[in-house]
Amino acid sequence: MTEMLDFMRVLADAAAGETLSRFRRRPAIDNKLADGFDPVTEADREAERAIRALLGERFPADGILGEEFGITNGDSARRWVIDPIDGTRAFISGLPLWGTLVGLTENGRATAGMMSQPFTGELYAADESGAYLEKSGERARLKASGVTELSEATICTTTPALFIDGKRPAYDRLEGSVRLARYGTDCYAYAMLASGHVDLVVEPGLQPYDIVALIPIIERAGGVITTFGGERPEGGGDIIAAATPQLHAKARAFLVAG
Amino acid sequence: MTEMLDFMRVLADAAAGETLSRFRRRPAIDNKLADGFDPVTEADREAERAIRALLGERFPADGILGEEFGITNGDSARRWVIDPIDGTRAFISGLPLWGTLVGLTENGRATAGMMSQPFTGELYAADESGAYLEKSGERARLKASGVTELSEATICTTTPALFIDGKRPAYDRLEGSVRLARYGTDCYAYAMLASGHVDLVVEPGLQPYDIVALIPIIERAGGVITTFGGERPEGGGDIIAAATPQLHAKARAFLVAG
Repeated sequence: MTEMLDFMRVLADAAAGETLSRFRRRPAIDNKLADGFDPVTEADREAERAIRALLGERFPADGILGEEFGITNGDSARRWVIDPIDGTRAFISGLPLWGTLVGLTENGRATAGMMSQPFTGELYAADESGAYLEKSGERARLKASGVTELSEATICTTTPALFIDGKRPAYDRLEGSVRLARYGTDCYAYAMLASGHVDLVVEPGLQPYDIVALIPIIERAGGVITTFGGERPEGGGDIIAAATPQLHAKARAFLVAG
Repeated sequence: MTEMLDFMRVLADAAAGETLSRFRRRPAIDNKLADGFDPVTEADREAERAIRALLGERFPADGILGEEFGITNGDSARRWVIDPIDGTRAFISGLPLWGTLVGLTENGRATAGMMSQPFTGELYAADESGAYLEKSGERARLKASGVTELSEATICTTTPALFIDGKRPAYDRLEGSVRLARYGTDCYAYAMLASGHVDLVVEPGLQPYDIVALIPIIERAGGVITTFGGERPEGGGDIIAAATPQLHAKARAFLVAG
């Protein structure tokens, strides 16, 4: 168990070397406008390359799906799913809410995952033994809140504007039923859910690499994560995560009915 | 000059002792529901007390306006303006975008100010010599971006839902004219503006203690900050901050017309 968590620390450090060095580098972003150089794209690519290199050394037969470089070893029952920078809009705005996501699926089921935020020095990681926050060399177990009522829940979504194709009224009704809403949180919202600080995360139109890494973190912390339709979330799509099964059912009722 | 910045580090550290120790303390928040104990209110009050104690020692004749404890020495030409935790919604959601704000006005004009985010270890501070980010013991000068066109600008606002009383359509038109919008950023948005990572911050209905500390940070970094009507921002109200005078004028035209 610890072996997997230690390996995730290695992956997180390698990715941080490529992302953090390009975070808040404004002159480079100005250059982008002048000559097409884009530090975010470069950080994305170099971080995925660094992660792929480590995976290739350690698990050469495993499959990889990455946002930047597609699929490798597509027939393997084990597949690593990588989003080198989830939350690129936060990244280019200097906000420390982006993260590096790496998840592992075995026969299509997410079994381990990590979200690393190197500016704050936080690594959220889960394997079969549980979900943990590693910070300043200490590892603490994560536990979602016990909130079961919408009226006591804090909800996060990146922006309500993403609820298109007629989904917006249902989201608005759900937001109107909870205690507090926060926007702009990207992958950081799932880490806060696993830590017990927020209770619901709802996001439409996700890709597998946006969510696979976060599934074990939510589930091992005691939370529930599915599509709006109640299916397994590994394939992405419209995703709802909640601190408890009761809260999940109550919130999902809004989104399915809508 | 350095003396003022050093004093702000002392204020920031004293406040951090009261805020950071209560940040992400979920059991205490659960207690709140049970017996009325509220860690956010306690952090707010204790941080303001700590700041007031230091101000009283160092500048006993100065006035103080604090969110929690009101006005002291109201007749003084020098007034310290304190928001011990700006962004309490971020605070209770575990998000590191809240800050401790302390500003100084002299004859009604903001001349120095600080925003401290102790979880990330960032202190944004300004005096007459300039605006600075202090992190890990290093002090770097802040400079707003040179963006003059709305089409190249990133805008921040806490949530569009705060634009009430007929102001929402004007905000929506402005947001529709910029490159990127980020929500939920509270006082952190002004720090990112002074750092050149975002270009516009627009927020309605602010109190003086929400904004006074941030005015010198924006202005000494080269930015412009006024009310929607173009007046000095020390009194709060509807506030617009921009990286350049050109961008400020273009964005303000939407909000005044609306």
